[in-house]
Amino acid sequence: MARIVQKYGGTSVGDVDRIKNVANRVKVTRDAGHEVVVVVSARAGVTNELIAKAKAVCALPSEREMDQLLAIGEQETIALTAMALHGLGVPAVSYTGAQAGIFTDKVHTKAKIRTIDAKPLEKDLSAGNVIIVAGFQGIDDDGQVTTLGRGGSDLTAIALAAAIKADKCEIYTDVDGVYTADPRVVKDARKLEEISYDEMLELASLGSKVMQTRSVEFAAKYGVVFEVRSSFNQNPGTIVKQEVAYMEKVVVRGVAVDKDQAKVVVSNVADKPGTAARVFRALADANINVDMIVQNVGRGGLANLTFTVPLSEKDKAVHALAPALKDVGGEASFDEKIAKLSVVGVGMRTHSGVAAALFDALAKVGANLELISTSEIKISVVISKDKADEAARAVHAAFGLEQA
Amino acid sequence: MARIVQKYGGTSVGDVDRIKNVANRVKVTRDAGHEVVVVVSARAGVTNELIAKAKAVCALPSEREMDQLLAIGEQETIALTAMALHGLGVPAVSYTGAQAGIFTDKVHTKAKIRTIDAKPLEKDLSAGNVIIVAGFQGIDDDGQVTTLGRGGSDLTAIALAAAIKADKCEIYTDVDGVYTADPRVVKDARKLEEISYDEMLELASLGSKVMQTRSVEFAAKYGVVFEVRSSFNQNPGTIVKQEVAYMEKVVVRGVAVDKDQAKVVVSNVADKPGTAARVFRALADANINVDMIVQNVGRGGLANLTFTVPLSEKDKAVHALAPALKDVGGEASFDEKIAKLSVVGVGMRTHSGVAAALFDALAKVGANLELISTSEIKISVVISKDKADEAARAVHAAFGLEQA
Repeated sequence: MARIVQKYGGTSVGDVDRIKNVANRVKVTRDAGHEVVVVVSARAGVTNELIAKAKAVCALPSEREMDQLLAIGEQETIALTAMALHGLGVPAVSYTGAQAGIFTDKVHTKAKIRTIDAKPLEKDLSAGNVIIVAGFQGIDDDGQVTTLGRGGSDLTAIALAAAIKADKCEIYTDVDGVYTADPRVVKDARKLEEISYDEMLELASLGSKVMQTRSVEFAAKYGVVFEVRSSFNQNPGTIVKQEVAYMEKVVVRGVAVDKDQAKVVVSNVADKPGTAARVFRALADANINVDMIVQNVGRGGLANLTFTVPLSEKDKAVHALAPALKDVGGEASFDEKIAKLSVVGVGMRTHSGVAAALFDALAKVGANLELISTSEIKISVVISKDKADEAARAVHAAFGLEQA
Repeated sequence: MARIVQKYGGTSVGDVDRIKNVANRVKVTRDAGHEVVVVVSARAGVTNELIAKAKAVCALPSEREMDQLLAIGEQETIALTAMALHGLGVPAVSYTGAQAGIFTDKVHTKAKIRTIDAKPLEKDLSAGNVIIVAGFQGIDDDGQVTTLGRGGSDLTAIALAAAIKADKCEIYTDVDGVYTADPRVVKDARKLEEISYDEMLELASLGSKVMQTRSVEFAAKYGVVFEVRSSFNQNPGTIVKQEVAYMEKVVVRGVAVDKDQAKVVVSNVADKPGTAARVFRALADANINVDMIVQNVGRGGLANLTFTVPLSEKDKAVHALAPALKDVGGEASFDEKIAKLSVVGVGMRTHSGVAAALFDALAKVGANLELISTSEIKISVVISKDKADEAARAVHAAFGLEQA
């Protein structure tokens, strides 16, 4: 008997039939003698529906009320999933985030899990019940409903797996696992059997869209081994775990493309201490994720700062930069027609020549490098968005990723 | 400055525009310098949508999970109503039943309020906020979500009004107030300026559909004066309060017709002690509301028991009666083609001849009396359903109810 946490995303519980499908899968696992804790998201689309309603009553809805509103998405799916299991004769009990003892800080719409009090859940689990927990949500010390932000349901699953010392955590989604590249773009992309936390982290942060970085970070921190797999078939997925020696044999594990970025150039700012701090403090205070920062000194002691921000946060960035630019001078320009392409692999730590091979492949398809940034296990470049797909195919081929 | 509880029902918060309308009305009250606590229902239709989903995943959904599911209806409206107030520049905080400290017993889908801990709510109220509370829901001592059953939002409003010692409780609905008869049936029905708890109770229990009896009982018990009025216009409504002397001048306050009843005849049971107890214990254990019980002794020492049950509980009654009839003999027959017509008025206590006048009016339209039952302040009869509307008009006219 193992203790298994299964997480089903919004498309997996997208309608009544899919909820029944999830119940059937859960039943199979339980019938095999395992203890099962299921984490479910809101059904796909419901969050957007609720946000639209909120915007219809108020231009700028308060985040506290937004959390109160959004939490109902998962509350619907937990109850329906529990009922679907009852319909199959499987005892099941649903838990909201609050009921599951998922305590967070007070940062509405992007709260962090502080602690999990799993005692009531453990009791129901020991009594033979399947436990259905609402993902994405928690409660603060004052009883306020909080939500965990994007990817929050994965985080709930991984944090719960750590809290109840689960033997396995399965993240069910609408993709089969983690691929060497986006299969819709690169035809011969290959599913990976396993991948290290570090590689998964880089891929997650680079827009591979399978999972959010924070969930992977959390799993790495607490050593939660998890599997990313599809709820629509029985294919094995990709296991994400601590790096092991043989993983280094592969230099590049995958190539990722992120088209949801904008390039920001802040030009002609004074080249003196404190300028960059002023600019990036303003962005940080607005909770904007900045990446790929490069600074050049231009003419006359004036400097240019270049960096990327998520496309969705561009307007917020424009707003946040305005007062900072008043202080330090200079002007900001934005370019949305860019993409970030990255190659990732723990093998890079011990292999050289990866950058050269990457730039070579990009040059062959005529992709101009606008920004370059590197870490121990990845190299990222910003190129023109309209070259991104062709570039991904070229790089995938250059590193022979189609072969196991 | 007064402290006012306002309750808005499902049609009043039926869509985004109606929620904005509610916010505007609340703002007017607050701008007049009052403290306002708003109780909202789920938007009209949402409860049925959720029940349909529940039935689609499970033939007989568990009541615990049903409560978990249904509670989201009000959670949506509280958040949207708070946001709509924010949009008007009015500070507002939403409360789920649990957050509002509405503690209930553990009877899922028809829980009773045990106590209200209004301290957090009082604090937010003192700070100048409008408080928006989810009607219909509460929490038990174990943190389980419970719902209060039909009319639960009215009960939340009246119980809260008692708990926070409100000066006024306004129940906003889609009707203007309490009428002398259903205005859709009786053209010259008249809105009552005020009515006593006892009269309102009888009318509520008799299908006038404005409010459930339990809310009125609760109001009477704690002396909460409330007004039933429309959220769609500015007309004054009907004030429901303790009986006062002048109310007795009117003999009959109104006439109510309930077409949602079935007549049950349990015939040929042994006429001995314990028989009726066995039958009605079975119905009580199944939580079925029985009314208008009559017993006749027939031939050979066998008795007939006749009574009414709500039409919606007929199937449950069939089920509940079966084992009892095995014990005491006899058989049950059901008649759905009946209606209950009642006249109500505290003046009946001191006036005679009401029954005669009622039976007279009914005889004139050819309505046969199948059952008769009386209390201090009402007389009810069961007649054929197809005579009900005509009978209501005749009785209304006979007692001169069209005149103030």
